[in-house]
Amino acid sequence: MKKTLKVIKIGSHIIDNEDLLKDFIEYFSQIQERKILVHGGGDAASKLSDKMDISVNKIDGRRITDKDTLDVVTMTYAGKINKSIVSALQGFSCNAIGLTGADANSILAKKRPANQIDYGFVGDVTSVNVEFIELLLSAHINPVFCSITHDANGQLLNTNADTIASVIAQAFSEKYNVSLCYLSELKGVLRDINDKNSVIEAIDLESFEKLKQEKVITDGMLPKIETALKSIAMGVKEIRITNEAVFAAENVGTLIK
Amino acid sequence: MKKTLKVIKIGSHIIDNEDLLKDFIEYFSQIQERKILVHGGGDAASKLSDKMDISVNKIDGRRITDKDTLDVVTMTYAGKINKSIVSALQGFSCNAIGLTGADANSILAKKRPANQIDYGFVGDVTSVNVEFIELLLSAHINPVFCSITHDANGQLLNTNADTIASVIAQAFSEKYNVSLCYLSELKGVLRDINDKNSVIEAIDLESFEKLKQEKVITDGMLPKIETALKSIAMGVKEIRITNEAVFAAENVGTLIK
Repeated sequence: MKKTLKVIKIGSHIIDNEDLLKDFIEYFSQIQERKILVHGGGDAASKLSDKMDISVNKIDGRRITDKDTLDVVTMTYAGKINKSIVSALQGFSCNAIGLTGADANSILAKKRPANQIDYGFVGDVTSVNVEFIELLLSAHINPVFCSITHDANGQLLNTNADTIASVIAQAFSEKYNVSLCYLSELKGVLRDINDKNSVIEAIDLESFEKLKQEKVITDGMLPKIETALKSIAMGVKEIRITNEAVFAAENVGTLIK
Repeated sequence: MKKTLKVIKIGSHIIDNEDLLKDFIEYFSQIQERKILVHGGGDAASKLSDKMDISVNKIDGRRITDKDTLDVVTMTYAGKINKSIVSALQGFSCNAIGLTGADANSILAKKRPANQIDYGFVGDVTSVNVEFIELLLSAHINPVFCSITHDANGQLLNTNADTIASVIAQAFSEKYNVSLCYLSELKGVLRDINDKNSVIEAIDLESFEKLKQEKVITDGMLPKIETALKSIAMGVKEIRITNEAVFAAENVGTLIK
C-alpha cells in the first residue's frame, strides 16, 4: 500500500502573524505522515523592498522581478522566512531542512519568456528532483521549500509558491497518496464572496463547470481551481483549500476531488 | 584506505569580488574529491545593515548580534550569498546544497553566555551531524554551509565561519583524510607583515612556539593558528592558509601540520 505524503502551502497570511505561525509550526510538527512544506512570503519581501528603497512593481498581482528584487526575495524567502521556520520546527523536534530549487537541484525551472510582459527573473517549473526529495523523506527529514527555483545555468528564479506546491504534489503522486493543502485567509472557496461562512464543501470537474457558468468562481480563484483539478487528474489524491481551522479539525474548507 | 575530504572556507575577500568569486566557483566545482564549502560574508551583512539603518556594533572585530542583526545576517548569509553560490555551482555542474546548522539539525550550537560582553545571538558549536552530512556526500551532493547555526530550541545563532570549518574538519577526520583550506586575503601567514611575499611555508607545534616568542605571530593570527594546530592534533590531515593562488597551484601558502 502507498504511504501518505502531506504537502502544505502557506503564505503571508500565516507567515506575517507571529502567533498564527507558531500555531502552524506546532500543527505541522505533529503531522505523523511524511510531509513537505511550501511557503511564499510576498508581503515581507515588499516590506524589505520599501526599507531598501527598491520599488515594488506588480502586474495583475504578479511581482516583476528585476535583479534587485531577486536579491530581496532571495534574502526574504530563502533567508529570513525559510530559516526561521526551519529552526522553529527543530524547536518542536521536527527535523526540517530548508530548500530552494537550486539546492541539490531539487526544482528546475525555465525563465519565463518576455512576451507581452517581461516578468524578469521569474521561473516556470520544468521538473522536480523526486529522487533527492525521497532521500530526505526516507531519512525522516521534512523539506521546507521557499518559492525560489533555478535554471541550472547559475540563475535563481522567483517562482509562484502555489505552483511549487502543486508540481511537488503531482511529482510524488505515483509513489504516494498525496494530500495537498493550501492554507489561505478564507475558510475555503466561497459561494458568496460577502459571506465568509459560505464555504463550498467540495468541487469536482462537473461542479466546477457549473460554478464557472454561474460566475460563483471568478478571477484569481479560476486558475487556482483549474490547477487543482489538473493535479487531481494527474493523480493527487485530495486537495483542500482552507485556513487555520484545519489545525483543529481535519475536514474543513473546500475539498477539490 | 580513507577517502579524501576537502573543506574550504571563504570570506568577504572572495564573496564581494564578482570575478574572484566566479574563479573560486569554477575551482571548487572542479575538485574531484568529496568537498564541503563554508562561507561567511560579514562585509555584505554590514552593507545591508547600513541600508536598513541598523547599527553595526563590533567588539574586537566581533559582531554583536541583536535581533535585527540576526535577521540581517540570516538574510545575507543564508539567503543571498548562500543561494547565489549554490546556483552558481549548479551552473558549473557541481551539485551543491546550501545549509545553515538548523537545516536537518546539521550543526548544533549553544548561545554564548553573556559574561563581560553580551554578544547577543551568537553560538558556539557543540556538535556536527556527521550522519546527515555523510548522507549528502555519499549521494555526491556538496554541502555549502553559511555561518548560521541553531540551538535546537527554535533559535538561530550567528557563528564564526572559521570555527564552523574547523569543527566540520575535526568531525570528519575519523572517516576521511581531511584537508582544510582557509582562503584569506594574504598569500599565507607572513613572517613580516609589511612584506606580502614573506610567507611562512609551514608551521607545526614546535615552530609555532618559536614564532610566538619572536612575536612574528600575534593578535588575530594567534587564535587562528592555535585552532588549526588543535584540529591537526584531533586528526585533520593538513590545513592550509592561503589566497586565490591555490586556484592555479596546490602547494601554496602556509601549511599547518
